[in-house]
Amino acid sequence: MRTSPIVGIFLLLASLATAQPQPQLNLMPMPASVQTGAGQLPITQSFSVGVVGTHDASLDGAVQRFVTQLSRQTGIPFRPKPGEPPTLQIHAEHGRQAVQKLGEDESYELTVTDSGAKLTAPTSLGILRGLQTFLQLAQITSSGFAVPAVTIKDQPRFPWRGTLIDVSRHFIPIDVLKRNIDGMAAVKMNVLHWHLSDDQGFRVESKVFPKLTGMGSDGMFYTQEEIRDFIAYAHDRGIRVMPEFDIPGHTHSWYPGYPELASGPGPYTLDGDGLDPIMDPTRETTYKFLEKFVAEMAKLFPDAYFHIGGDEVDGKQWDANPQIQAFIHAHGMKNNQDLQAYFNQRLQKIVAKNHKIMVGWDEILHPDLPKTIIVQSWRGQESLAAAAKQGYRGLLSFGYYLDLMWPAARHYAVDPMADAAATLTPEEKSRILGGESCQWAEWVTPENIDSHIWPRNAVIAERLWSPQEIKDVASMYTRMNAVSLDLEWLGLTHRSARPHMLHRMAGTGDITALRNLADVVEPVKDYNRWSDAKGPIDFHAPLTRMIDAVYPESDPARHFGDLVQTFVQSGYKDQAAEAQIRMWLTTWRDNDARLHPLLDQTFLLQEDEPMSQDLSALGAAGLQALDYLDKGQPAPDSWKTQQLALIDQAKKPMADLLLMVAAPVQQLVEASAAEHK
Amino acid sequence: MRTSPIVGIFLLLASLATAQPQPQLNLMPMPASVQTGAGQLPITQSFSVGVVGTHDASLDGAVQRFVTQLSRQTGIPFRPKPGEPPTLQIHAEHGRQAVQKLGEDESYELTVTDSGAKLTAPTSLGILRGLQTFLQLAQITSSGFAVPAVTIKDQPRFPWRGTLIDVSRHFIPIDVLKRNIDGMAAVKMNVLHWHLSDDQGFRVESKVFPKLTGMGSDGMFYTQEEIRDFIAYAHDRGIRVMPEFDIPGHTHSWYPGYPELASGPGPYTLDGDGLDPIMDPTRETTYKFLEKFVAEMAKLFPDAYFHIGGDEVDGKQWDANPQIQAFIHAHGMKNNQDLQAYFNQRLQKIVAKNHKIMVGWDEILHPDLPKTIIVQSWRGQESLAAAAKQGYRGLLSFGYYLDLMWPAARHYAVDPMADAAATLTPEEKSRILGGESCQWAEWVTPENIDSHIWPRNAVIAERLWSPQEIKDVASMYTRMNAVSLDLEWLGLTHRSARPHMLHRMAGTGDITALRNLADVVEPVKDYNRWSDAKGPIDFHAPLTRMIDAVYPESDPARHFGDLVQTFVQSGYKDQAAEAQIRMWLTTWRDNDARLHPLLDQTFLLQEDEPMSQDLSALGAAGLQALDYLDKGQPAPDSWKTQQLALIDQAKKPMADLLLMVAAPVQQLVEASAAEHK
Repeated sequence: MRTSPIVGIFLLLASLATAQPQPQLNLMPMPASVQTGAGQLPITQSFSVGVVGTHDASLDGAVQRFVTQLSRQTGIPFRPKPGEPPTLQIHAEHGRQAVQKLGEDESYELTVTDSGAKLTAPTSLGILRGLQTFLQLAQITSSGFAVPAVTIKDQPRFPWRGTLIDVSRHFIPIDVLKRNIDGMAAVKMNVLHWHLSDDQGFRVESKVFPKLTGMGSDGMFYTQEEIRDFIAYAHDRGIRVMPEFDIPGHTHSWYPGYPELASGPGPYTLDGDGLDPIMDPTRETTYKFLEKFVAEMAKLFPDAYFHIGGDEVDGKQWDANPQIQAFIHAHGMKNNQDLQAYFNQRLQKIVAKNHKIMVGWDEILHPDLPKTIIVQSWRGQESLAAAAKQGYRGLLSFGYYLDLMWPAARHYAVDPMADAAATLTPEEKSRILGGESCQWAEWVTPENIDSHIWPRNAVIAERLWSPQEIKDVASMYTRMNAVSLDLEWLGLTHRSARPHMLHRMAGTGDITALRNLADVVEPVKDYNRWSDAKGPIDFHAPLTRMIDAVYPESDPARHFGDLVQTFVQSGYKDQAAEAQIRMWLTTWRDNDARLHPLLDQTFLLQEDEPMSQDLSALGAAGLQALDYLDKGQPAPDSWKTQQLALIDQAKKPMADLLLMVAAPVQQLVEASAAEHK
Repeated sequence: MRTSPIVGIFLLLASLATAQPQPQLNLMPMPASVQTGAGQLPITQSFSVGVVGTHDASLDGAVQRFVTQLSRQTGIPFRPKPGEPPTLQIHAEHGRQAVQKLGEDESYELTVTDSGAKLTAPTSLGILRGLQTFLQLAQITSSGFAVPAVTIKDQPRFPWRGTLIDVSRHFIPIDVLKRNIDGMAAVKMNVLHWHLSDDQGFRVESKVFPKLTGMGSDGMFYTQEEIRDFIAYAHDRGIRVMPEFDIPGHTHSWYPGYPELASGPGPYTLDGDGLDPIMDPTRETTYKFLEKFVAEMAKLFPDAYFHIGGDEVDGKQWDANPQIQAFIHAHGMKNNQDLQAYFNQRLQKIVAKNHKIMVGWDEILHPDLPKTIIVQSWRGQESLAAAAKQGYRGLLSFGYYLDLMWPAARHYAVDPMADAAATLTPEEKSRILGGESCQWAEWVTPENIDSHIWPRNAVIAERLWSPQEIKDVASMYTRMNAVSLDLEWLGLTHRSARPHMLHRMAGTGDITALRNLADVVEPVKDYNRWSDAKGPIDFHAPLTRMIDAVYPESDPARHFGDLVQTFVQSGYKDQAAEAQIRMWLTTWRDNDARLHPLLDQTFLLQEDEPMSQDLSALGAAGLQALDYLDKGQPAPDSWKTQQLALIDQAKKPMADLLLMVAAPVQQLVEASAAEHK
């Protein structure tokens, strides 16, 4: 099924830096095969698209959106000349499935010459993918907008390339989801995994059980009509929508309306009973409820897959309930895990009766479940490989948690076929279907969710689409930054939201100095914000601090680190690099003086005062280090000791932020104190 | 009707600079009376609004939008505590008219103390205005978001405060118009003057005459359903929608479908016949057509006023048509003007028959028309005063043409009651109803129209709402910049569109240096872009040049000019000012080296190369001038001559742009060469 990829342009791209004069192909995900040709196809006002072969409303809509998007990117209002042959000719052999299938053919071929372009595909789904490639190829040149001559043959490495969006912890409105669907389509992802219920809120209208949202949400949920409209929107863009209703844990929001489902006595309210209530798998009434509920939801969501969660079942309520413990013993079970497996078996039958295939997190894996189910692994490739060996299909999400605030390169390095999975037989490997990035929503709002997802999600999309060999980090960053600009044309706000948030923090003050600070900090990583939260998270608190406005990864800090690296490797001789380093350091050294008056004035910035001072101190230390290096005499030990203490201080998280330029400044300070040449 | 205003806070505000530590009231338009109190009302999560008195769907909607907007600005998800008294209590005596009337009461009173706020008004229309004031009062402080204690009594100076938006030359979609309606409501404007037809396109669906859009547009027009929805949207925000169908000139788009209306033989096509066809007022069939057309449009647009244009009637077709000339003689008319007056008289009867009051541009003024009509003056206060003396009501638009790219201060200085109007009797003065800013659409697209309208439109709104005495320019700029930030929270893109447009021009290159250049240039003024266009304008050409991306007014250039002023007035002793001036000049001097490689690469930036070089030369010249000043010895004459030649060069428009820092650098150069102390 997955043919061996031919890698053409890749090696050429590997070493290109950010702002190159040569034209380059800023494609992400990189296609399976790219062969560049001579010349380019100009994109002018007469640009037009012609469709031959299969023709349906979905394809026509896609072509219309494509033209609109190309017009937006180039600013050209197209006016095709009647009678002229189309600039881009499209030919799909077949149409698409009414409900998109896992593994449906997404391949396409795109040929561009200086006189025209041709996009062909076995299905119109492949055409959707190819149109996105064309959009990414369009670039500005010294003579106009153009697409370089190229021949691309492309198909995905994995058939399941998803993004999970949690809408329970913070409600995310449909329009925000839609623009994220557009972003996913732009990087050829094909599954939105919609995490629709969790402790903090139940987000889907149920007509059978109206108290699920009536008492289990703050009034913010999706009506069934909105959901149908949203699924159609995603389908038009080649994206499946898989619902997740996480049971039997993560279910607090079910119980204000239906306390009889819980394993403890209740009553329950949505806002903090300080409990971790879980579903009672020992009562027949629970299954009667689930029969009706799953039947309703299975009709609402046409996708063949149905995610039942199953993760992190906290057994406290089961332990505390004598009836449940008696049930465990009566049925010869050893522990709570066995009880969950029993629950899952019964649930799986309900799901199957509704013609759906059950998907769940690692914890559902149990030999009693049929091999049809799919296991989604937050634990890692080992867990995934173990499932594959037992005959289960699997998805990787370990390493793709966007909420952990990792740099793109770290996500990019995670491969579903790595480590334990690498040792599987070909048949076992074929059970690894792909993966999903996860955007858990404890710390996002509609305002900043885009910047938590994008552009990093594009590199996970590439990992799941492109040949395994595509892994050069420098090329990835170059292309990710180009795609990031394209994504803003779709209406995503991952870059444009930050100035608004900084202005909110700054009142009417000038934000130049604030931006200088925001540019070089990152949020603390992993779950450190949780640990700092001290006590339960208030999910209703504003998310308007600096940590909420900054990007998960600092581009300027990475560039600065690279510059220092270049300078060090040149034996401190690269004067251009040194000049740029000095420019940065000077800006930082002087920044606190500019920023300080503002920090004092607004309550949202007061916590950032020490960070601002540290940045200025780092700037000063770096400049002194350069002065020592320029003089060619080692800096005194006492000075070095003092600076390293300061750098240590600057490396500590403050206000849940990390100052990302501390390490390269340390490198300069240490170099300046060393004997050299 | 209009009571004498009590000006409270105004003098306090007059001299405040941009980033002040003291809390200040960033209100625009400034209310008629403001009295500040002690303390402030915190805006917290428990913020709530209570409505007593009149209650209708329109008011409820307004309150809902107000809360959403306050939540967006502060980032606080409000969760009122049940049972607690509302933070803001609203009381309207009466509801609103179903169709908003000219002169409908817009007054309100707003009292804020540290424990709560109260907003009262005779009508719910006044409540809408007061809610906008409250939003502008909310600000960030060192302890949280808050509204300062204040007592405001407010009503407008003029009852007609409008913005004309031309949607013919470039079609502007409804969603763009809606966000501009939101902006207008935020600054208390109350009329959208919708310029719906002109030579380049007819933009309203007519069911009676479908060829008006069918052959007289490029397919982009508003359906009647969209128009009804839009009018309701505007009404909800307290804004009347007055349509304009410009006749008998500016009518090219009518004739492809209905050539029999024209004064020449035809046939006509929408795209450039190189003609200026005008309507034939001598045929009865013309009036039969207008009878039906006006009847249809009068039903569609509920506003009591109906604008028939009437401007710039080019008589060439009348002169060339012997039948028309014979008609003129037969009816004892002297010239084409008399023929237009005849046309207007007949038209006025048709308009009146449909229960509408006719509005038209200066040219329609003629003693044979009844005193009910309104004259809109693009010619100036003299024309307005002349009309008022003859008993006609009038509106000022002269001085408020946003497309002329004037600085805000220049619009701000234009007062409808100034010059000739100042000498009118009170009764005559009462005929001057207000004014309208005008956004003619030759050079705008949906992408950049917001930045052409905002924030400058806010100062015209203030001129028309606030007491005449409110005219301090420094205070205006401070408040305009604050309001500009608020407007972005409404979804206007006057600031956020520029980075997108710069990125389009720059491809994937870094835009820092490009932004430095864009920051200090302005488009050429008045109609100079027209003159440079050489030949007829191509209304379908992309608007993606630097001139299309930059703001009409450069804030940094104005600030730099102020800094130089401060430095000069200090006798060259203000070291803080000098340090800042040096910082700017250094950035500019070094900018071309950073920017040059990029300018070469993309066709959209090549024309900006000389401008970039000039900016760097200005930076260098300014720095040398400061060095001479610091040394205390006059710069040599030869140097001065050389620099002034360079500055002269830099002052010339290039690529339709003006380099706005040339003048202050000249000031430095001249100072450095002068004998002083």
